[in-house]
Amino acid sequence: VTTTFPSGRLEAFSDGVFAIAITLLVLDLRVPLREPHRSLASALAKEWPSYGAYLVSFAIIGIIWVNHHTVFRNVRAVDRPVLFANLFLLGVVSLLPFPTRLLAEYLRDGWNGNVAAMVYSAAMLAMSVGFSVLWLLVTRERADLLHEHIDRAQARGALRRFGAGLFIYLATIAVAALSAGIALIVHAVLAVYYSFDQLAGATPTATPGQASAPHTKGHA
Amino acid sequence: VTTTFPSGRLEAFSDGVFAIAITLLVLDLRVPLREPHRSLASALAKEWPSYGAYLVSFAIIGIIWVNHHTVFRNVRAVDRPVLFANLFLLGVVSLLPFPTRLLAEYLRDGWNGNVAAMVYSAAMLAMSVGFSVLWLLVTRERADLLHEHIDRAQARGALRRFGAGLFIYLATIAVAALSAGIALIVHAVLAVYYSFDQLAGATPTATPGQASAPHTKGHA
Amino acid sequence: VTTTFPSGRLEAFSDGVFAIAITLLVLDLRVPLREPHRSLASALAKEWPSYGAYLVSFAIIGIIWVNHHTVFRNVRAVDRPVLFANLFLLGVVSLLPFPTRLLAEYLRDGWNGNVAAMVYSAAMLAMSVGFSVLWLLVTRERADLLHEHIDRAQARGALRRFGAGLFIYLATIAVAALSAGIALIVHAVLAVYYSFDQLAGATPTATPGQASAPHTKGHA
Amino acid sequence: VTTTFPSGRLEAFSDGVFAIAITLLVLDLRVPLREPHRSLASALAKEWPSYGAYLVSFAIIGIIWVNHHTVFRNVRAVDRPVLFANLFLLGVVSLLPFPTRLLAEYLRDGWNGNVAAMVYSAAMLAMSVGFSVLWLLVTRERADLLHEHIDRAQARGALRRFGAGLFIYLATIAVAALSAGIALIVHAVLAVYYSFDQLAGATPTATPGQASAPHTKGHA
Repeated sequence: VTTTFPSGRLEAFSDGVFAIAITLLVLDLRVPLREPHRSLASALAKEWPSYGAYLVSFAIIGIIWVNHHTVFRNVRAVDRPVLFANLFLLGVVSLLPFPTRLLAEYLRDGWNGNVAAMVYSAAMLAMSVGFSVLWLLVTRERADLLHEHIDRAQARGALRRFGAGLFIYLATIAVAALSAGIALIVHAVLAVYYSFDQLAGATPTATPGQASAPHTKGHA
Repeated sequence: VTTTFPSGRLEAFSDGVFAIAITLLVLDLRVPLREPHRSLASALAKEWPSYGAYLVSFAIIGIIWVNHHTVFRNVRAVDRPVLFANLFLLGVVSLLPFPTRLLAEYLRDGWNGNVAAMVYSAAMLAMSVGFSVLWLLVTRERADLLHEHIDRAQARGALRRFGAGLFIYLATIAVAALSAGIALIVHAVLAVYYSFDQLAGATPTATPGQASAPHTKGHA
Repeated sequence: VTTTFPSGRLEAFSDGVFAIAITLLVLDLRVPLREPHRSLASALAKEWPSYGAYLVSFAIIGIIWVNHHTVFRNVRAVDRPVLFANLFLLGVVSLLPFPTRLLAEYLRDGWNGNVAAMVYSAAMLAMSVGFSVLWLLVTRERADLLHEHIDRAQARGALRRFGAGLFIYLATIAVAALSAGIALIVHAVLAVYYSFDQLAGATPTATPGQASAPHTKGHA
Repeated sequence: VTTTFPSGRLEAFSDGVFAIAITLLVLDLRVPLREPHRSLASALAKEWPSYGAYLVSFAIIGIIWVNHHTVFRNVRAVDRPVLFANLFLLGVVSLLPFPTRLLAEYLRDGWNGNVAAMVYSAAMLAMSVGFSVLWLLVTRERADLLHEHIDRAQARGALRRFGAGLFIYLATIAVAALSAGIALIVHAVLAVYYSFDQLAGATPTATPGQASAPHTKGHA
């Protein structure tokens, strides 16, 4: 007998971690120190790697949240393995402000910039692994009771796309060794790609009737 | 076919970001360093720009939250474009502690104070753009299934008021170039204006019967 | 016609602010700098004002949360004035880490310690004002539709106790001017006093039947 | 007559504190200062105690959350003693980033490292005490109305395992006095042990029917 948990608290806890990780990014936007005869405008302009890293990381965490929401939209109950796979993914998400800071600090510092970009790419690879494992566990055969009907063929298609993602993120580590700037651009492009619904078809569309049922609205 | 999401998690995630952004503001209230023969009272008194910036930003984030709540009060389901428009708005909200710190640090530093106030005004303009886009998407014609009936004429009226807000926030950037202090006062006045219900009439009043239905109470 | 809001999101947002404010306190527990020939044990022991201030503030925020929960336990819907009164209270709560840090830093610094304790007492007074206004708005006559039946006589009794609290917190400012240490002890005693249910009788006891109705459980 | 509270807000508030405490850990992963002729790779490699402490603390807070979730899965209502016991546990959880930082800073600093590990072990002991008290209060005889049926014999078995945990955590303080490194390893092993369901059997398994009832899904 597997103990199951309604998925509400997993989602609430995850929302908390996502919200904090995405908001903590702002703590790394430094206010330039006040000095005599120094122009704030030019001091801010010099901080562009901070803003670039901030924007890419914000977009990435935001998109992970949207996709996390998509995965759990029709999940009704989870078991302990799913709780821990989710914890692993949250661990990576809550870690992201660290490689972001590293990248902002070292981006223009020669080989150190490549090292920082490799650490960033490794974090994104870990995120990709976490997401794939979570999707695998949520859609696995013996978990039929955990969710509404999921189209098997489509779920396998989504898993293949996730698997391809693993190799691409692995490749970004090599790209980062060659050029930190190009690696950052690749991550921005991948973020745009994942902002489109990679699970479309695999999870059933909530019908208006379901969505508007009053008891599905927990917060208002 | 559009995939829709019940709005509960969007609201929970948004609440998290609002709560963190509004609470992080306090981290920028600095405790004066302890020095021999220094009066804490006068050291605190000299920090008034920090308190002013803190109060205005707290009020602004609080009011955005109230208005966000008002927009989503009768929304039952959202789609992917709404999720991303909401993410953009949250991005601006989570960013606000940065221009607030900037303003507190540079307010009395000549032209740098104007630059800081212009950055602050630009952030408020971005917030206004985010709110208008969100309102446009939530009330758009083909989204009828997403919410309860919204009065079309009133919704257009609210949109016109938001649109006017765009021009006013754009103007505050110019004001900030002339005087940082006046710009801060204008933002305080705008916050008071938006603390009144600009959506009144556009969204249906929840009847007591609805509001007190037991299943609408998610948390207690 | 007053626009009302189901109370779920007010509670979720408040929970977020309480949780962050109470957790941010830990950021002010400083790790002593590593120095040659320095004993960590004695360095930690010298930091006792930080621990004292931390404990009192943690207990106070925790107790405010319990009492906030008690106030809203039977509230089904809120209106705009309640939202803003709640925002004011949350503003004070999210501010508390600042006077806590101030007190930890200056407690043993002569008159500066008294000033820090007066600021701390003023923050507690503001919290008390916020709570009284919130209670007044939630239980006011024309808001009958917002909550389940509240015993009028008992509600007035609770309000009198809150009103007395106002004068006591006002008095702690004067006490702080005489002795910062005694003021901190008084705040600890007041925290213990408010940890007992000051609203008992005023709000109806949820009957087991109600509490265990499945749809009242939002999160699990 | 005991006033009871539906458990939803206790869980939401707890989720917030857990999420923030687990995410704040990342703030202590320091980005090495940029210096001429310094290799970022080797600077990062030297920070391994930070990563070790981070990983262990992340895992521990994550596992406490899973077990907290398990305890409250079938609890429908709580009373004031449970609220305060939960506050105590949350206080320990929100404190954990402090001994984690202490350990990361002093692990390789001779006897100071032992002191840091003893503080860490004491925090884990406090956590264990908090969890035992919470379990005792939630499963106590006169609280039958607060939860669904709990198997008495199994609940006592779980309590015995918690009680044994108290002695083990007490012992880790002594271990830390001998070797900080071994103490950290013991805590990692204990974390793995508690990642398995220590409450299995004591709390009833949610049947699929219950779990999938639409009104148990608060957030989506």
